[in-house]
Order: sequence, then C-alpha cells, then structure tokens
Amino acid sequence: MPSISEKGLRMPASPIRKLVPYAEAAKKRGAHVIHLNIGQPDIKTPKVALDAVKNHTIEVLAYSMTEGSEVYRQKIAAYYAKNDINVSSDDIIVTTGGSEALSFAMGTIMDADDEIIIPEPFYANYNGFATASGVKVVPIVSTIENNFSLPPIADFEKLISPKTKAILICNPGNPTGYLYSKSEIQQLTDLVKKHNLFLVADEVYREFTYEGREHYSILQEIGLEEHAIVVDSVSKRYSMCGARIGCLVSKNKEVVQTALKFAQARLSPPTFAQIASEAALETPQEYFDDVIKEYADRRNTLISELQKLDGVKVGIPQGAFYCVVELPVSNSDDFAQWLLEKFEMDGNTVMVAPAAGFYASKGLGGNQIRIAYVLEKEQLVKAVQILGEALKVYNS
Amino acid sequence: MPSISEKGLRMPASPIRKLVPYAEAAKKRGAHVIHLNIGQPDIKTPKVALDAVKNHTIEVLAYSMTEGSEVYRQKIAAYYAKNDINVSSDDIIVTTGGSEALSFAMGTIMDADDEIIIPEPFYANYNGFATASGVKVVPIVSTIENNFSLPPIADFEKLISPKTKAILICNPGNPTGYLYSKSEIQQLTDLVKKHNLFLVADEVYREFTYEGREHYSILQEIGLEEHAIVVDSVSKRYSMCGARIGCLVSKNKEVVQTALKFAQARLSPPTFAQIASEAALETPQEYFDDVIKEYADRRNTLISELQKLDGVKVGIPQGAFYCVVELPVSNSDDFAQWLLEKFEMDGNTVMVAPAAGFYASKGLGGNQIRIAYVLEKEQLVKAVQILGEALKVYNS
Repeated sequence: MPSISEKGLRMPASPIRKLVPYAEAAKKRGAHVIHLNIGQPDIKTPKVALDAVKNHTIEVLAYSMTEGSEVYRQKIAAYYAKNDINVSSDDIIVTTGGSEALSFAMGTIMDADDEIIIPEPFYANYNGFATASGVKVVPIVSTIENNFSLPPIADFEKLISPKTKAILICNPGNPTGYLYSKSEIQQLTDLVKKHNLFLVADEVYREFTYEGREHYSILQEIGLEEHAIVVDSVSKRYSMCGARIGCLVSKNKEVVQTALKFAQARLSPPTFAQIASEAALETPQEYFDDVIKEYADRRNTLISELQKLDGVKVGIPQGAFYCVVELPVSNSDDFAQWLLEKFEMDGNTVMVAPAAGFYASKGLGGNQIRIAYVLEKEQLVKAVQILGEALKVYNS
Repeated sequence: MPSISEKGLRMPASPIRKLVPYAEAAKKRGAHVIHLNIGQPDIKTPKVALDAVKNHTIEVLAYSMTEGSEVYRQKIAAYYAKNDINVSSDDIIVTTGGSEALSFAMGTIMDADDEIIIPEPFYANYNGFATASGVKVVPIVSTIENNFSLPPIADFEKLISPKTKAILICNPGNPTGYLYSKSEIQQLTDLVKKHNLFLVADEVYREFTYEGREHYSILQEIGLEEHAIVVDSVSKRYSMCGARIGCLVSKNKEVVQTALKFAQARLSPPTFAQIASEAALETPQEYFDDVIKEYADRRNTLISELQKLDGVKVGIPQGAFYCVVELPVSNSDDFAQWLLEKFEMDGNTVMVAPAAGFYASKGLGGNQIRIAYVLEKEQLVKAVQILGEALKVYNS
C-alpha cells in the first residue's frame, strides 16, 4: 500500500474531535450534553442576508470573480472605513472563510521550514494550516496570570531567527478573549519593522469587545502598511459560519498580487455565500447592539459563576466569546472525557474543549479548558454548576 | 519591506489572465469578443438545485459537517452506484470544489519535493496546487498526433524515481478532451501497483462523453482500491461552477482519515452550496440527455468547421468540452493577444486560451490553443470563421 505523506501524519486532528464519540455515547444513554466546547454562535443570522439568498435570480450558477466582485469589495472597504480602517477594494481578496485567507497569507509569505511566531494559547487550526504549508510554528507563551496579554517584546526577540517571516496574532483572541491594546499593537509594529517581518492579524472577532473597550486594528497603524496582513471573516460577525466567506486585506501590493495567484488556482469563492455576505453588510446597527449586549451579559454571568468555584482561575475575556479557565485537575483531557463518560447532574453533563490543543509547547495548558459563551445565560449557569459538582466528585 | 515567499513568486498566474486586459480593451473599443477561452458552461443550472436554495429555511447559518453531512454523502454514494462505482459514504469527503479535493489529495500523499507525474497538456491549475503544496510536477508528453492518448508505459517508467508518489490524470481530459479507455486505465493500474504509487483521477467531466463512449473510472478497477483517489465536482456536471462543491473519494481508509484532518482545519464546506448540490442529485435524466446532446452537436460542429481551415490540426475530443487545436503560427500567446488587439471581422473577435500554459515542459504547446465549446453552435461557427480569417491576415 502506498504511504501517506509525513505532512499528513503530522497534521493535527481537531482537539475536540476525539471527544465527539464520548459526547455521542452520552447522548445515546440519554444524557443532555451542554456544549461549552464550540464556537458556533446560537445567534440568528441577519434576515437581510438569508433573504438575499432566498431571493436569488440565478439561472446559471457561474464562477464568480476570483478576488470577489468589485462591488462587494468596495462595500467591504466601506465597512472598514466605518471602523476607521482605510483600505480600498484593491487591497481586498474575498476568500472561502477566514481559513482560506490564512492559508493564502502563509503561502504568500512563507516557504517550507520558515517560522511564524504565535502567542499561545492560540486557535488550534493555525497548527493545521502551518503543517499543510510546511512552515514551523514557534510559540511564545502568554499566561493566565497576565490574562494572556502580549508577552514581553524581549521574549519575542529571543525567538526571532533568520527563518522567522512573520508574527501571527488573533485579536481579540480565540481562545483567550484577550484584546490587544493600541500600545501592544504599537510594540509589535516596532518589532516587525525592526526585523523586517510580516504581522498577520486574525481580526474576525473585531466587533465583540466588552466594558467599553475599542478594537485597534493593525491596519490602523501608520507605517505598518507593507507589513500588515489582516485575515477576516463574516462567520462570527453575522453568525454565518456556514457561509464560508472571509477576506485577506493588505496594503502591500506584492502580497495581494501573490495571494491572488493562490486564489486563481481555486477559481472563485462560493457564489451564494457571497450574495449572503454582501447583503449582510446592510445589517442594521441594532442587530450588533443586541448581539454585543447579549454576549456581554453571558460573559458577565459566566465569569461571576466560574469565580465562585474553588480552585478555578479564569482568564477575563475582553473580547470574542471565549475564555480560558484553569481547573484544579492535572489533566483536562482526561477530565473532559470523564465528564462525558461518567458524570451527570439531573441528567445533564458538559462538554468542554481541553486547552492543551491550543498550545504548541508540549505540557502547557494541561490543566486548562476553553469555554465558549455562545449559549443562553441559563444554560451557562447550569453548565458551571455541573462543572463545580463534577470537580468535587472527580477530585475525591 | 519584508519579502514574498519563493513559493509565491513561483506560483503560476492563470494563463488566460494576462489576456484579460486586452479583452477588456477590445470590448471598450466596441468589439464583440467571442469567448472560446473559458470552461464556464452557458447551460442552465438544474431548477431543482436553484429552487432548493431559494426555499432554504435556515435561521442560523451554522458550520456544517467537516466531511459533508451523512445524508449528502450517502446520496453521492448512490450517484456513484448508478455509475457502476461501488463506494460508501465513509469513502467520501465533501470539499469546496474539485480544487480543494485536489489540494487535500496532494497534501495527504505528498511532501515537499515529492514528484507527481502528469500527462501534459493538463489543467493549468494543477501547477498552482503543486506549487502551493511544494511538490514537483513531472510532465509526460502526450501528443496531438496520437490524439493525446496515454503515453507509452515505458515512458512513465523512465520518469519514476524514489521521489515519485503519484500519477495524476484528468479523465476525460481538460484541455485535451481525451477519454482514457478501460485498457489504458488497466495499464496505469499495473504501473502504480508495480511501483506502489497512488493514482489520482480528476473525473469531473465523467458524464460528458461522445459517440457512444463510456467513461471508465479508476474506482471501478478491482485491486486498485488502496491506490485510487478520485477528485470530483458538481461544477460542470450541473453547470454550477459557482457552487464550489466537490468531493474526494477513496477506498483507502488512511487517505480518507488523513484528508479529513486537512478538512478539519478549514472547518466545513459552504452550506448553501451543499443544499444546491444535494438537490442537484435529483436532476432528471432528461436534463443530462439534453445537455450531452447539445455538447455533442457543438463538438461536431466545431470540429468540422475547424477541419476546414488550412494548416489547422484538431485533437478530436471524446469527452469533456474542450479541444486542443494546433495553428499555423509559431507563438499562440502572441496570436491570442493580436486577435484581441488588432483583429475584428464585422465587429467581432475571438478570445482563445494559448496552450503553452497547459504544458509544464518549456517550449511545448507554443503553436496550440485550447477551445472550450460551451457556446451556442452559431457562435462557434462564427468564431471559427473569424479564426480562419485572422490566421490569413496574421500570417501575411
């Protein structure tokens, strides 16, 4: 039998995936599983987006423009302008999700064995894209003690090698919920300019910030134009993860022209999803006000409930809809599986995402989990109660 | 300024893309451009597929299953069964177009610097995916004299090295229109089994065969199960190129499990497009009968018109909707540009795809073009007349 590639063997499986059979078994035995593990919002997609697809008048579902239509890209540029980000349609390539934007970015700026520095814990699929592109992730630790704020620049300096091509941040962060301040972005700006690196920012949660904080984009940094590449997506913004539309944004012409060649190979992004995404830009502001208020309420509830638990440490999220939680257990993988296999409270149990999969450094995050607060408050309260009871039983 | 990757510099631009500005200029000056260059069918998408999307009842456009829903994959398996191909839903991963299926296949079976042998001329984007994956395309020449039939197995043997991991065919072929016979597939079977290679077949044009020929899939070959990977797509089958849905099919469990890890990194294929694609499987047989009849008519018309031209040699297509044509010119790139820049007949001109971009070997195909017969017969007749006149002027 011919053999699989080494790259394929190294490709990480989804960190949640191995728990799926246990969740299914739990459901089969009649337990109700509360899912704290997934970033799939329960929020309704804006009607204007769904209706646009219902009202389509397509007769031949043809290829669309490789880079997205001029009209859609102009509307995206107008969206950025409203967010104090000054880009033109020429700086934008529409992609099949933020995922593809990140793939294109990696392919455009990195060759095999090149290195990309990423503060950990980070979105687990960065590992997958890096492996698929043959590039090396160099993690830099951010800690729950510092609420996952930017690690000291001196620590970055120690990791920069001739192979380093870029620094990648997720802002606000998945899984940390941390929102980098303007000052932190400026420190990164100085760093990437000094070492002539790219700064790639995954800003798909831009709108989701709490307690009056404002998101500061790397595209707002004067002088960073040739270094900055933003990865964006409609998935979370409009609760339309299934659309699979995102974009890559850069004012570096060479980056856009090169990424376009990767885009040409795959022909075009999906047409129906572009119709929905273009219409979604007409979503009224009240939608966002309501959604942010809902997430803020959930966040506050979740945090205060978690803080009641003995021995539990919570990273306080400032944005997105995740938080990392440290538990009084030695192995959160084992605990997560035990929850599904062995624990029930009034017929309910909880599925969490063990955090080790969000770290590239072996041995880190082993006592942490990620919680996504994309459920209603009552569910979150119940889930934390279950978690509290479960910890008592597990540790006794 | 930080530098682009070497991979990015090597990524081939679309061979047609450089002609686009000339086509736009031609249109701007008032010329009507007949597009023989693109594989975008003018055939209407089945109503059942378009209506399914119009009638969607989605409220939260959530992630779908990474590998496509069980129901859709079962229906795909049933489609294959009707084509005498015996696979189960577990052998199938739904992808974002055939493009993504090919990317996953390459990532799954090949590492950087590994080699894949492809009969040329071949679909130009294979170069793009190979470059993006860091793998090396080793072309093997097929000739218009032999109607682009399978090169002698002895020629393959000469090219096989320890780095060779796979042979890739497109059947029926883009751009050649050649349909590999059962005997040719069996020769390839013996070859890949002898050398323990994968055989990857792009079978997206399976339905489009002429003069009573029948398509023979590599998945029909007994004993090839562990070696065969099929790349498929709804794009041409249902004239829904803009959906961006395809699939990877293999009975090799390790291939499917590994490809699934690549799929997990990008989360899921687009939801609306899957709704359309699942419904498209209900397309009545008359649709296909009509479409194939239409393409057969166009093919016959195109071939007989082209054969009237002096000094023109035509590869006779047996499937798909392309043919490669050899012209009495030394540089078809230059001729194609000249057509758009300088030539009109009654206000019309023609855009063709220069064939050099379909060859990996430098210097081959320089006097060839690819013609797609996705236009109405009258347009094809007129286009060939223009081509004939243009050749006279160009060569005088």
